[in-house]
Amino acid sequence: MSGWVRIIGLGPGPEKWLSPEARDVLAQASDVFGYTPYAQTARAYTKAALHPSDNGDEIARAKEALAFAQRGARAAVVSGGDAGVFGMASAVFEAMEQGDAAWRALDVEVIPGMSAMLAAAALAGAPLGHDFCVISLSDRLKPWSIIERRLRAACAGDFAIALYNPASHTRTEQVKNAIALLERECGAERIIVLASNVGRAQERMVIATLATLDSSLIDMRTLLLVGSSRTRLIAREGKAPLVYTPRFYAEDS
Amino acid sequence: MSGWVRIIGLGPGPEKWLSPEARDVLAQASDVFGYTPYAQTARAYTKAALHPSDNGDEIARAKEALAFAQRGARAAVVSGGDAGVFGMASAVFEAMEQGDAAWRALDVEVIPGMSAMLAAAALAGAPLGHDFCVISLSDRLKPWSIIERRLRAACAGDFAIALYNPASHTRTEQVKNAIALLERECGAERIIVLASNVGRAQERMVIATLATLDSSLIDMRTLLLVGSSRTRLIAREGKAPLVYTPRFYAEDS
Repeated sequence: MSGWVRIIGLGPGPEKWLSPEARDVLAQASDVFGYTPYAQTARAYTKAALHPSDNGDEIARAKEALAFAQRGARAAVVSGGDAGVFGMASAVFEAMEQGDAAWRALDVEVIPGMSAMLAAAALAGAPLGHDFCVISLSDRLKPWSIIERRLRAACAGDFAIALYNPASHTRTEQVKNAIALLERECGAERIIVLASNVGRAQERMVIATLATLDSSLIDMRTLLLVGSSRTRLIAREGKAPLVYTPRFYAEDS
Repeated sequence: MSGWVRIIGLGPGPEKWLSPEARDVLAQASDVFGYTPYAQTARAYTKAALHPSDNGDEIARAKEALAFAQRGARAAVVSGGDAGVFGMASAVFEAMEQGDAAWRALDVEVIPGMSAMLAAAALAGAPLGHDFCVISLSDRLKPWSIIERRLRAACAGDFAIALYNPASHTRTEQVKNAIALLERECGAERIIVLASNVGRAQERMVIATLATLDSSLIDMRTLLLVGSSRTRLIAREGKAPLVYTPRFYAEDS
């Protein structure tokens, strides 16, 4: 048997951001496992059998893929963005540790992808152009206390911050609490970029401050990019301003 | 005139990680500006005139590209990885602010790329599978004090950490100081992954702890990935262990 598992980042969505490697591996797969919208995206690049599943079923999905590979399948597990950034890679490794010891002998590789924060940052300019932190606001798998601790640390280090998973249908208060915390720790004037559906027809970008951001615009498809104290705007006539964090960081300013 | 500037991330190096969008834009460019090795990488995808320059000349390079675009050129400014992560995007925006006011009216866009940390993390497993920080250890443009402040904040938040630019021919002490600081703040047993030349023939990965890492292996082409307190190894027979950070973060552990 020559089964394998490839954990693939599809990038933020459009074909222009899918890596040639990911495309090749999808073409070789016999079975594709993923959250339904990502499995549907993968369909364009493969003749494999699709095994879509719901959000929240990550470990069950990972175990199914590992069991398929053990029986000889070429199992592609797909994530949006990069599978190693709040995607399926860690879920597959958790499942490997929990499951059949023979799974550790399987041929398993992660195929990197363009993470959504990079596409969102490019749309705005270069808000992550200096040191930054990446934090998921979902408290489904971690306590809110560690999220608060990390937001505080990000402010203490004067990092720019990319916030994943700011809200869902059932999680709407968390992002308000996070923004209130950031406002207290970093100041109300801190620049924030809201980016939704980047690279898709419904793409939307809003540039605001922590004080002026309308949090009702934030949903599952939104990424938030918070500037550091040095993040700046370049005004442009007839276009959105460019948001960027300079490479320089003067000692005394 | 219909000049433009596109600030392009080439990805970590191999063609398999170059986005279709970056490839298309390179094919349309009339002039390519970049640090010599990246300009040479771009040569495979374009008939444009190449304008290679030395490392450290970022603002001069950016101004040259903007001046070319002002005269009608289709100017591609290339970076390795993603241009918005310690790449040319912020340098171009700094140059826009410093230079001719007409430059702000130019058609300027950032074309995102796969950042090197994502490819390095995929090679190791999923060390960045939970919240993480991204820090450049270069003190060429920022004081060492802010780097230390950010390393301390990263430990205080129990983030995983991607360290860019750990060393160069002339900067060899900084990474030793950074590792000593991390060892004091996070403990000597913290997992660290050294990844060099990821995706190239000379690719090398070393998995160690802060205490056991041989810093003489670190050079300009190295990325370091430091685990959080939760980062784990999965031992595999005849293969490098998988390094991953679980998605779960238990309150009491």
